[in-house]
Amino acid sequence: MTPEKNVDERALRRCLGQFGTGVTIITTEKDGVRAGVTANSFSSISLDPPLVGWSLKRTSRSFEAFKAATHFTVNILSSDQIEVSQVFSGPDTDKFAKVNWTPGITGTPVIPGAIGIFECKVDTIHEAGDHLIFIGEVQRFEHNQGDALLFSQGRYAVAMDHPKLKPAADLSPKSEGDEAASFWRMMFLAQHRMSRRFDRHREQEGFTAAQTRVLMTVFDRPGGTMDEMINAAVLPSLIADDAVNSLADRGLLVRGSDGKLTLTNEGVARRKVMADHWAQFEANELRGIDPADIANARKVLEKLLAA
Amino acid sequence: MTPEKNVDERALRRCLGQFGTGVTIITTEKDGVRAGVTANSFSSISLDPPLVGWSLKRTSRSFEAFKAATHFTVNILSSDQIEVSQVFSGPDTDKFAKVNWTPGITGTPVIPGAIGIFECKVDTIHEAGDHLIFIGEVQRFEHNQGDALLFSQGRYAVAMDHPKLKPAADLSPKSEGDEAASFWRMMFLAQHRMSRRFDRHREQEGFTAAQTRVLMTVFDRPGGTMDEMINAAVLPSLIADDAVNSLADRGLLVRGSDGKLTLTNEGVARRKVMADHWAQFEANELRGIDPADIANARKVLEKLLAA
Repeated sequence: MTPEKNVDERALRRCLGQFGTGVTIITTEKDGVRAGVTANSFSSISLDPPLVGWSLKRTSRSFEAFKAATHFTVNILSSDQIEVSQVFSGPDTDKFAKVNWTPGITGTPVIPGAIGIFECKVDTIHEAGDHLIFIGEVQRFEHNQGDALLFSQGRYAVAMDHPKLKPAADLSPKSEGDEAASFWRMMFLAQHRMSRRFDRHREQEGFTAAQTRVLMTVFDRPGGTMDEMINAAVLPSLIADDAVNSLADRGLLVRGSDGKLTLTNEGVARRKVMADHWAQFEANELRGIDPADIANARKVLEKLLAA
Repeated sequence: MTPEKNVDERALRRCLGQFGTGVTIITTEKDGVRAGVTANSFSSISLDPPLVGWSLKRTSRSFEAFKAATHFTVNILSSDQIEVSQVFSGPDTDKFAKVNWTPGITGTPVIPGAIGIFECKVDTIHEAGDHLIFIGEVQRFEHNQGDALLFSQGRYAVAMDHPKLKPAADLSPKSEGDEAASFWRMMFLAQHRMSRRFDRHREQEGFTAAQTRVLMTVFDRPGGTMDEMINAAVLPSLIADDAVNSLADRGLLVRGSDGKLTLTNEGVARRKVMADHWAQFEANELRGIDPADIANARKVLEKLLAA
């Protein structure tokens, strides 16, 4: 692959990453040998018959296992299961030793705590460029309560109600609960607005969320391996690879022949400038509010968090 | 379809909804006639060649247009584009009269403001139960800045950094900005925690987010049509249908022969009980905090929102 092509693929992958998704672990099993991958290409396809689909890269280490599989199980992860996502997208050779699982109706591993589980029989496999698309017919499904783990715009995320939605707080009658309700609503709106403004600020620095995270992590822990950086930054390995390569292409980071990551002088300088800009951004957001009032508000938040 | 099957399909659809997604508008055009649908079945498939996929129900009003199409364009919506999502999932017959669009390289409509745009040539179409899967080869893509619109667990949402991630605030040096940084971080954590607890509370009431939203909306606006309710509740029509049917099956809501929605006496009673529980939940969350401190903290939030 030419360098130009690499850059184009990274740009394409980043653009595809604008589509947020849940995170699934897809598992299979044959003769006691298990395979599992982290996938965000899952989608619901048909209800009658019940079909779901996902795709797997031909170069995946688990490719042969899935290609030969008669069954697979889709486990939709909860927001408490980032570690499970990281294990199945990482370099571990025995992933199933690192997570809880139980055999499903056909023996394929089911991950307890997953908020949606679909045990499937392989229906069809389609060729599609460098991937295969697997279509499975749902044999059994299980719906568990919990918040969804999301992956959106280069980082793990959780969902918050869209600010345009009528707030749940409006459930309360206009009475004594009302004051408190508006407190929560205002906290939500203030927080959301600040996050959005910070995202715009970060974009103006010229870095994606993943690149910012890599730059921060390698600054704090210079000389770490890729795996150490991935663990500290909590990024899926493919996203981390892209971010490292982009930063290296821009002369901000070097990956040594020993695989260790360090920032260049320019990378260190950019990170410091970014920190200065961030401090200014923050000061601007809080300008005009009495520091004593902020300190008081922080005490309220401390109490809420301690409850 | 038997009633039992309807119930099973609703349960399956709800379980499939545990997988969060972005929201796309997929468009096509032939001889000046345009079609467009809201879809969350989009997924990235292959990078080399660049292939993306999505699926469409055979009963969709736009089915014939897409089946005959040689090209389609995927528009990934930003969080500012809920209305666009609602137009393309709603009953309007001339959707393109209601949104901004421009013709793309092959004439298919491109929606300005979309955070990711993929203009595709149809590569393959696969049959899959009650849907067709469309695979397109990306001819041109465009990456625009902005936050993603998400659909997760039955409602429109925005992504927030996962609470386990090292906060962006840590970018700032340990200096004067530090106090303020921890204020934002605490606001985020308090808000996130409260949201999660409220979700658990809601689940204990025995309603999904969408059902709660329908119950609230029909209580506030009894006698409205389905479309009016959908507009007020800001729900995609398929999700709204499921929620209305579930509430009707439970005897909480009736859809009259004129299509108008009203709560039954039991529905009204349940909604009132829910409001009482919510007021108690809120009071519990704030118990032990001096009301004067909460009033003061609210003033800080007001200033932040007014800035």
